[in-house]
Amino acid sequence: MGPTDLDQLLAGVADVVPEDGLQQKLALGRPLRVKLGIDPSRPDLHLGHAVVLRKLRLFQDLGHEVVLIIGDFTGRVGDPSGQSETRPFLTEEEIEANARSYFDQAGTVLDLEGVEIRRNSEWLRSLSMVEVLDLTSRVTVAQMLERDDFRQRFRSGRPISVVEFLYPLMQAMDSVAVRADVEMGGTDQTFNLLVGREIQRAHGQEPQVVFTMPLLEGTDGIRKMSKSYDNYVGLTEPAEEMFGKLMSIPDEVIGKYLLLCTDAGPEDVARVEAGLADGSLHPNDQKRGVARAIVDLYHGPGAGAHAQDRFDLVHRQREIPTDVPEVEIPVSAIRDGRVWLPRLLVETGLASSNAEARRLVGQGGVRLGGETLDDPEAELEPDAVRGKALQVGRRRFVRLV
Amino acid sequence: MGPTDLDQLLAGVADVVPEDGLQQKLALGRPLRVKLGIDPSRPDLHLGHAVVLRKLRLFQDLGHEVVLIIGDFTGRVGDPSGQSETRPFLTEEEIEANARSYFDQAGTVLDLEGVEIRRNSEWLRSLSMVEVLDLTSRVTVAQMLERDDFRQRFRSGRPISVVEFLYPLMQAMDSVAVRADVEMGGTDQTFNLLVGREIQRAHGQEPQVVFTMPLLEGTDGIRKMSKSYDNYVGLTEPAEEMFGKLMSIPDEVIGKYLLLCTDAGPEDVARVEAGLADGSLHPNDQKRGVARAIVDLYHGPGAGAHAQDRFDLVHRQREIPTDVPEVEIPVSAIRDGRVWLPRLLVETGLASSNAEARRLVGQGGVRLGGETLDDPEAELEPDAVRGKALQVGRRRFVRLV
Repeated sequence: MGPTDLDQLLAGVADVVPEDGLQQKLALGRPLRVKLGIDPSRPDLHLGHAVVLRKLRLFQDLGHEVVLIIGDFTGRVGDPSGQSETRPFLTEEEIEANARSYFDQAGTVLDLEGVEIRRNSEWLRSLSMVEVLDLTSRVTVAQMLERDDFRQRFRSGRPISVVEFLYPLMQAMDSVAVRADVEMGGTDQTFNLLVGREIQRAHGQEPQVVFTMPLLEGTDGIRKMSKSYDNYVGLTEPAEEMFGKLMSIPDEVIGKYLLLCTDAGPEDVARVEAGLADGSLHPNDQKRGVARAIVDLYHGPGAGAHAQDRFDLVHRQREIPTDVPEVEIPVSAIRDGRVWLPRLLVETGLASSNAEARRLVGQGGVRLGGETLDDPEAELEPDAVRGKALQVGRRRFVRLV
Repeated sequence: MGPTDLDQLLAGVADVVPEDGLQQKLALGRPLRVKLGIDPSRPDLHLGHAVVLRKLRLFQDLGHEVVLIIGDFTGRVGDPSGQSETRPFLTEEEIEANARSYFDQAGTVLDLEGVEIRRNSEWLRSLSMVEVLDLTSRVTVAQMLERDDFRQRFRSGRPISVVEFLYPLMQAMDSVAVRADVEMGGTDQTFNLLVGREIQRAHGQEPQVVFTMPLLEGTDGIRKMSKSYDNYVGLTEPAEEMFGKLMSIPDEVIGKYLLLCTDAGPEDVARVEAGLADGSLHPNDQKRGVARAIVDLYHGPGAGAHAQDRFDLVHRQREIPTDVPEVEIPVSAIRDGRVWLPRLLVETGLASSNAEARRLVGQGGVRLGGETLDDPEAELEPDAVRGKALQVGRRRFVRLV
């Protein structure tokens, strides 16, 4: 028996409030309305955004209704979540252009055909002052200042405009307007999503389930992925650029990228992380595997391997000395039209026997085109071997021609 | 030459922002629009409110335009200034009833014929969300928390509803709507009035002058006068009740009541305060004078003296023993139809000589009907003397019949 809907939905999740909330909503037996608010001040989507979008796609695939809210009205305020400064208003024209760009990119993950798209100006522009007073009476200043970024700015004496207190309340009104069953977001949205529960309750609605995904570290492995930190991988970047950026992530985040950015299940991730921890798996190989898988997702199956080849051609071969002796692939190493690795190593003089060759591979000491080979009995396509450098240890090379 | 308009207006004032602001506005040479916001959640007017109303009346008398804003819309929020808790909304019906009651009472001070009365629902109810966002973007959370009562509540962990942050901003919109040149208030309003300047500036208006009057201590002499502290003197209370309450103020606030609640000029106040300080004036007499003057203001000339008589009859005579010997006013003490005090004391056996009588009066040791006599050569109306107890020191009495 495969994983249940609930298992799949909860894989990789950061937090669900209330804990058993999703379970209860699923038990309603009807398609859930799963909301995501879109900040139209940030039109460039990257893998960090895709963490949430991919989970949203899973909801779609399981038959639920995805509701995307374009914050065309709140965009006039800007969402200061996780930001350190009051951000400028946007014009309506900028917001519409950004929204179009957003959907172009989000379409690489979501099935946009089935998505309900709403603009929050629809209900916020006409909000009356009486409603504003009622809305703002539901939350205290101290509660607002519990939000991480507000608290930090307040403590360090950086200004918080009063208008920023209205943002979570307006976002909460969005949940009321679309009658959200679930609201998704990154963990930096937890506060706003919880306010949504309060305001829905105040409007007599069953409160939404707060469903947050972890924030993905950028390629620096330190700060959350963001265009402004220049540590991002854009969803519509060319395959090679994507691959190259992904190869720069530190080893520590390989497992997280595997979990949040690929189709790997929690068991796969656990296996890889264990292998990396006990040294039985090589970080560079795993990184390449993650990079290939991600490129495949956004550029189609096989695009990852192709990007990897190009990457190797351009980047990895730089590490190989220019005076490497060229050696024809020895006919004696070919079995049934494929190149048998132990024999290749012996015939090219890189190992003294098949046994030593197998040992070298087993130690992770043999590379082809810069990539570590891990199968001592590997049988390789001659075309995949030709033109590449075969390497044992750090200093011994031949180029196969 | 009498005091200038500016001198009169500035008498007793707590603060003017900017310092020379009123001077500059007066120099415009046109009637100024002087605004006062009315909180319709507190319909009972007392002498504390009258401090501001009396100054407003002076503006009227000098030819300026008084604009009273009934906070019928903001009353739905309540003004938390100086209050320690978020206050409940009022219904529109309660607000209208309270406003009517307010004017009944304010009419004892202001010339309501010449007053422009506006309800802030006129412009606040239709305030659009876009305008709200603009408005709230003008002030920071830290600035709001500089307001005394907010700061105190925030520090002590008592809740401040976010809606309360909207109140000063709405009050500021009132100033924009009526194009106020001056806004008056108690010192607890300083913050709100300053916000008015900011918002007027943001709307391209010349900022109003902030003009605050001191808060009047209640009859306990400690906390500001307030119905909730039960230390207030209501503007429409019966004369005797007013007089009685005023007689209970501590000596320390006599000068302040004289300055803020009567028509006494700053020189009069200075003279009384000096006299009280050096002992040449008796606190009780001054208190009676202040009480009479205030009762006269709200109940007409002579009402103070009458209330005092009634007060004495009921209260002071209780202190006088019941077995006081009755003595006819001696004919030998009457000169030109009036009773000469030194002679009266000698003839009734309370002094041994005119000289001793004068000395006793000079020391403040002689009272008539409970009131200390301070003029050793006093010539009294026989009718003002008859029926009263004449007292020397704490123990020696005669009742004059």
